[in-house]
Amino acid sequence: MLRIGLLGAGRIGNVHAQAISDHPESILAMVSDALTESAEKLAATYGAEARSSSEIIGDPGIDAVLIATPTDTHSDLIEAATLAGKAVLCEKPVDLSLDRALACQNAVAASGQPVMIGFNRRFDPGFGSLKTAVDVGEIGAPELLSITSFDPAPPPIEYVKVSGGLFRDMTIHDFDLANFIMGELPVSVSAVGTSTVDPAIAEAGDVDTAVVTMTYADGKIAVIKNSRRAVYGYDQRVEILGSGGLLQAQNVLENTVVKSTAAGVISAKPTYFFLERYMPAYRAEWDAFVAAIKTGSEVPVTLADGVAALAMAEAATRSVRSGAPVQLDEILKPVAK
Amino acid sequence: MLRIGLLGAGRIGNVHAQAISDHPESILAMVSDALTESAEKLAATYGAEARSSSEIIGDPGIDAVLIATPTDTHSDLIEAATLAGKAVLCEKPVDLSLDRALACQNAVAASGQPVMIGFNRRFDPGFGSLKTAVDVGEIGAPELLSITSFDPAPPPIEYVKVSGGLFRDMTIHDFDLANFIMGELPVSVSAVGTSTVDPAIAEAGDVDTAVVTMTYADGKIAVIKNSRRAVYGYDQRVEILGSGGLLQAQNVLENTVVKSTAAGVISAKPTYFFLERYMPAYRAEWDAFVAAIKTGSEVPVTLADGVAALAMAEAATRSVRSGAPVQLDEILKPVAK
Amino acid sequence: MLRIGLLGAGRIGNVHAQAISDHPESILAMVSDALTESAEKLAATYGAEARSSSEIIGDPGIDAVLIATPTDTHSDLIEAATLAGKAVLCEKPVDLSLDRALACQNAVAASGQPVMIGFNRRFDPGFGSLKTAVDVGEIGAPELLSITSFDPAPPPIEYVKVSGGLFRDMTIHDFDLANFIMGELPVSVSAVGTSTVDPAIAEAGDVDTAVVTMTYADGKIAVIKNSRRAVYGYDQRVEILGSGGLLQAQNVLENTVVKSTAAGVISAKPTYFFLERYMPAYRAEWDAFVAAIKTGSEVPVTLADGVAALAMAEAATRSVRSGAPVQLDEILKPVAK
Amino acid sequence: MLRIGLLGAGRIGNVHAQAISDHPESILAMVSDALTESAEKLAATYGAEARSSSEIIGDPGIDAVLIATPTDTHSDLIEAATLAGKAVLCEKPVDLSLDRALACQNAVAASGQPVMIGFNRRFDPGFGSLKTAVDVGEIGAPELLSITSFDPAPPPIEYVKVSGGLFRDMTIHDFDLANFIMGELPVSVSAVGTSTVDPAIAEAGDVDTAVVTMTYADGKIAVIKNSRRAVYGYDQRVEILGSGGLLQAQNVLENTVVKSTAAGVISAKPTYFFLERYMPAYRAEWDAFVAAIKTGSEVPVTLADGVAALAMAEAATRSVRSGAPVQLDEILKPVAK
Repeated sequence: MLRIGLLGAGRIGNVHAQAISDHPESILAMVSDALTESAEKLAATYGAEARSSSEIIGDPGIDAVLIATPTDTHSDLIEAATLAGKAVLCEKPVDLSLDRALACQNAVAASGQPVMIGFNRRFDPGFGSLKTAVDVGEIGAPELLSITSFDPAPPPIEYVKVSGGLFRDMTIHDFDLANFIMGELPVSVSAVGTSTVDPAIAEAGDVDTAVVTMTYADGKIAVIKNSRRAVYGYDQRVEILGSGGLLQAQNVLENTVVKSTAAGVISAKPTYFFLERYMPAYRAEWDAFVAAIKTGSEVPVTLADGVAALAMAEAATRSVRSGAPVQLDEILKPVAK
Repeated sequence: MLRIGLLGAGRIGNVHAQAISDHPESILAMVSDALTESAEKLAATYGAEARSSSEIIGDPGIDAVLIATPTDTHSDLIEAATLAGKAVLCEKPVDLSLDRALACQNAVAASGQPVMIGFNRRFDPGFGSLKTAVDVGEIGAPELLSITSFDPAPPPIEYVKVSGGLFRDMTIHDFDLANFIMGELPVSVSAVGTSTVDPAIAEAGDVDTAVVTMTYADGKIAVIKNSRRAVYGYDQRVEILGSGGLLQAQNVLENTVVKSTAAGVISAKPTYFFLERYMPAYRAEWDAFVAAIKTGSEVPVTLADGVAALAMAEAATRSVRSGAPVQLDEILKPVAK
Repeated sequence: MLRIGLLGAGRIGNVHAQAISDHPESILAMVSDALTESAEKLAATYGAEARSSSEIIGDPGIDAVLIATPTDTHSDLIEAATLAGKAVLCEKPVDLSLDRALACQNAVAASGQPVMIGFNRRFDPGFGSLKTAVDVGEIGAPELLSITSFDPAPPPIEYVKVSGGLFRDMTIHDFDLANFIMGELPVSVSAVGTSTVDPAIAEAGDVDTAVVTMTYADGKIAVIKNSRRAVYGYDQRVEILGSGGLLQAQNVLENTVVKSTAAGVISAKPTYFFLERYMPAYRAEWDAFVAAIKTGSEVPVTLADGVAALAMAEAATRSVRSGAPVQLDEILKPVAK
Repeated sequence: MLRIGLLGAGRIGNVHAQAISDHPESILAMVSDALTESAEKLAATYGAEARSSSEIIGDPGIDAVLIATPTDTHSDLIEAATLAGKAVLCEKPVDLSLDRALACQNAVAASGQPVMIGFNRRFDPGFGSLKTAVDVGEIGAPELLSITSFDPAPPPIEYVKVSGGLFRDMTIHDFDLANFIMGELPVSVSAVGTSTVDPAIAEAGDVDTAVVTMTYADGKIAVIKNSRRAVYGYDQRVEILGSGGLLQAQNVLENTVVKSTAAGVISAKPTYFFLERYMPAYRAEWDAFVAAIKTGSEVPVTLADGVAALAMAEAATRSVRSGAPVQLDEILKPVAK
């Protein structure tokens, strides 16, 4: 039984707490949060103790920590926890600074501890089935990947300001999903982005609607479409064309009821947001982490994966500004993956 | 916190054990089974005690019992448990004998204890949404209900022989679903049935393919289609035509991946069987039972509902034999609902 | 080039006129109608002559006649035309009287002329594809056929009064479709019917909502669901379960546009009525008739098919009245098919 | 009645011949082709005369010409026909040379004759419905347009070599469709393209897989995905996200039959290629041309539309080579639209 320390008791921390608690091989032992009250409340729900992050990291009875704190603390906490000999599952992104993330990656390598990054979409049953179908050759050689990823509504403008921008905050999931499906990194990243959803987002220096195009060494192409607002719900679709056909992972709908009236044929909307859509993925993610720790095998999403996605976000951010494609190796050059 | 005794540790008992254990307001305290080993194994999984059924029923620390034993023990156990002051959730059907079920209903009425029958499909999110849409008038006045209910594969012939026949074993769920959606009982029941899936089923005196047509006092009609075999999975669909439109609850698919190749456009199959399809329904059913017990309100599926569905199964069985419609009140006449 | 005489210049006559005119091997030469003005107008559109029915039938330059007159004239016109050596395509039903239709069948047999009945749905691309798939064994042995056939709105009550009733007027298409797909006639026909759409229909002695169940010698079952009103459009679906799977012919929608908004995901409705839905079928029907006449092969829908469907309508009408199933051979006994 | 001269009796010429002939207000009077035999054969089918192009253009009895000859003759024929006072419908593209197309546009302007360009997709019922829905505000302000346009199989390599490249030959339809839906031209065009389908296409200096991203003055974005090969058929989809929702025009399938077996749920494929998919669009296009000529109103797709799409193809071609976005006004600057 793995004893887990959870750092961060916010919305996503609560999601992880439930997955940890429900898993037959893990126990939620300790919880920390900048707001002591939040930590105490969450701890009480699961019979855990509320502690400080440093106490949890320093506690010899803790086997692994799950980091669900604000992004700017991720690198420090990953380093501290791995130095203390803990296995780590850290929410995305690793950091807003690619340099800091690279330094963290080096520190972790020195520690020898496993660090998994929380790209939960890899564990979505639909995307997983699509990936498997690609890998076993059901559509032949992959040629053109397309990811549609629209949030239902933009986050509060205060969050936008500290988010690192659309590409580091939202598209980073899509970058990782592309890497997961394609099985390799792109060569170039080109992006256009505008702010049509909310002028305040433009004032904050960010975009809310974007298209990112990526090319690969062997000629494959990937395109990501993002919007901060789809009023009909969380639109999360993937499709990939190959020499032998097309695979699509369509939206998960709220239910299967269809109503036909004089007004048309009306189906349910996509599930509203990530909590509704990806809850099974969060559970499967935690299950994969526990399995890797128990068996000593490599975690299925590495810190290098987190750094790669961050580098792609950096490339897209630069591309929007310069209006030109960015070669990924210019950004990742210094790193030995 | 409700302390629960589970009678029966077979496949469906295991399903209920998990729902009981996961619920924040119930604890699986005791488990019984004709096979002591099964009871012990299931009890161990959830930290419960293995006991005999009579011990559980007689234990003053038990608040409610869930009966998931073979059908021929249901009535006796319901009577014993309610006599001992326990609330009861009993799997369908109440009994294979309508007379015995009626006697049980009288005994329970005398006890004053709540007894809920496990018609889990009422708690399926899709069927629930359809029912709500009907009730709020989204399709006007209901006119024609159609239920498609196909199992993926027939049960073992030994089970068929003691099952009471297709109508009491399988269609009974559809009868209750019709009652749930229509909000009233039919006037007449007419059925045709044949055995085309497996000749052994015919030899056992049963049918494996059937169509049941029911008429209602105000002119509404309902039709149920059953088969013991749909090789593509568990086919569970409901549609209802009304003066203002049509509502359909379509199948739940294994995933949302669609593959287009030279062979066609291929989607996932329906989830395989009731455990996959109705797990959310089993949880919601238990939640509804707990809520009714805690608040003292009426259980949402009563013993009278169980008796009504059984009477409809009886009517369909007679109709297949006689080739003529059967009036439901000829069968239910003696009962005061 | 076949020279065609069209008897009847009403709505369905106009449909056929266009199919005749567009076909490269047929010419619309003459048109008749009880309303001379209608005949003249339709004739003018296609450069044909307006004549009386008897003139057309007696004209040696006419190769075939298409009968699209009121039902009560069908038998007389079929007999007169075949006696005059014409090939005939006659709209359904052959007659409202089964006896009259049987007499007509005998007369036609004596004439040796080909008579095809206008069951256009056999030529619908979807139903045709389904039939082919059944015949080549794509779902193994057929077991359970289900036909959903709802009109968008009831006909004028004056039409209802002379229509021969729902089963002879509307369900007759579904009876023939069942015969087409099953490849054999049922043994028994059982029907329930009510009038929930419009009380005037009940006052006229007819039903507007019905379910017909049919059984076959080898155990297959078929069920037909009818309503005179589906406010969302013409609902025309077929599904058939077999030992190897399920085939469904779904509705044809007005277009492929899907709109997702906060209100849901909205698709187009089914095409509104038979003119929209079955225009390709009318063209294919005419093509099949011309091909049969040109090659001297048997017409694909025979007068015997028309009589069989009429007998099933008769059986359903009796079943609704008696409340009991009707054996088809009791009705068809005198006929040698 | 308009008397039409058809220049070009190849595959697309045959499509137009049928539309011209079937239209109640036009007659196919004359046909020309570089292969006299082709012209004679097509002319014979419709009772027209085979002539040379110059004879047709010079014939005072001809009201309008439809140009369906090889692309390199389009500009010359448009100029000659308009100079001779004929109305013109010319297949896309106007020319492979933007300069030549611009000169042609000037010449036509001087002639005062109407010239319509054959962007048939504007007349597809699905795309038309989507456009109407956008225009009436059903999804609020448009933000992100996505066009998926895959051919079923690449053309012969000899055709590829003279086609002007993917963007001028295939994407040009998508450029015009974007202009149609957006109602304005983009500001910048950025493209990536590779050759993964067939190495011979790369050797011919062309690409077979491409993604084009376009930005608009007010912040809207459009993305076009192209492939020369989708083994499942002609994939022609459009979707557009707006502030109030999403509109999708989905593929037209071969039929509505769905088969569920142990292998999955299998639907029909998209219609195979443009003749199957766009036949209704070709008819509607011709109808719109005739209507404009008869009423003297502006043709719905102008020569300026043809020039604009060609300029976008030019921009995309340059962008693939340079790796940088191209500003459309750099290309269209000299033109007064």
